[in-house]
Amino acid sequence: MSRTGRRPGLSGTREDILVAARRGFGARGYQATTFRSIAEDVGVDPGLLVHYFGTKERLFVAALSITLRPSELFGDLGKVSASDAAELIVRRYLAMLDQDETRDMVLGLVRSAVSNERAAGMLGEFVAQVMRSSLSELINRSDAELRAALAVAHLIGIAMLRHVVKEGTIVHASDDELVSLVAPVIASYLQ
Amino acid sequence: MSRTGRRPGLSGTREDILVAARRGFGARGYQATTFRSIAEDVGVDPGLLVHYFGTKERLFVAALSITLRPSELFGDLGKVSASDAAELIVRRYLAMLDQDETRDMVLGLVRSAVSNERAAGMLGEFVAQVMRSSLSELINRSDAELRAALAVAHLIGIAMLRHVVKEGTIVHASDDELVSLVAPVIASYLQ
Repeated sequence: MSRTGRRPGLSGTREDILVAARRGFGARGYQATTFRSIAEDVGVDPGLLVHYFGTKERLFVAALSITLRPSELFGDLGKVSASDAAELIVRRYLAMLDQDETRDMVLGLVRSAVSNERAAGMLGEFVAQVMRSSLSELINRSDAELRAALAVAHLIGIAMLRHVVKEGTIVHASDDELVSLVAPVIASYLQ
Repeated sequence: MSRTGRRPGLSGTREDILVAARRGFGARGYQATTFRSIAEDVGVDPGLLVHYFGTKERLFVAALSITLRPSELFGDLGKVSASDAAELIVRRYLAMLDQDETRDMVLGLVRSAVSNERAAGMLGEFVAQVMRSSLSELINRSDAELRAALAVAHLIGIAMLRHVVKEGTIVHASDDELVSLVAPVIASYLQ
């Protein structure tokens, strides 16, 4: 494709932009990823990104949503016991992190958050949204949101040790071993 | 002090170098922090750093040790119950993170680890050392090391949400609220 071969705006879908944004934030970090660079990747006008997402912050949150997929993690758990829900959450989460593409993107997004206060704020807002919209709904307690936040903190810590720090025992543990130890802890926060 | 006013090697103590290293890794990250830059901060010859620490990796681990202070976190717990030990660990950890200087350094070191594979490996080794030397000793189980690693994962996740991502419910929770929910979870890993 020639360097001037941008496709016209109409062929660039919202989905294409999100996938390119996820790739950009993951590989280059929050700061270095601009509407212009993403628009260039997709081959659309930067104005289309403004039209769909308004700001880089909103685009970052949307890119997080297609990466962490809260509905896949926390969906369909309303009718099962706390211990079954906890086991499903831990299994789904480990399976999600086992996908190379998802893992790379999650790590890139966390990297962005750690190195940029604005990205950290967006990640915080996203985590809060995830909890409010899904996990805390499963908890019938006055401190449901704090319990949900702590469950999420545990899951984030496991991803940090398994995939960033690469701590040996957690890297080498099987999914079943992790589920058998972690699920009861998540269940204790849920009930 | 003039720019050529380096003090001779003998006046630069191991402690001064560690404090400067911690400051350097915290503020500039792992990659940008060199023996030369630290030696300049302290006013000693870079050869003295080689003499004391050998490599930048070893210096990084030593800087972690004076920052996270495993003996303060996990010391003197051999004779108390798992639930008392867990409560002490969570209280000590939250108190440690409440000190501005420690928190900034920990976040800087985590930032280094997230952005540099080598620093991540060192942090992983350090976490493993901390666990092997202290926390897993408290656990009388065949999977003591995995349990210890998961307890550490939870503590790291809480620091991420409280101080990096600044998730609202965890930021606003009191130490007592956090201890009352987190200590039983840490205790369940310890017993």
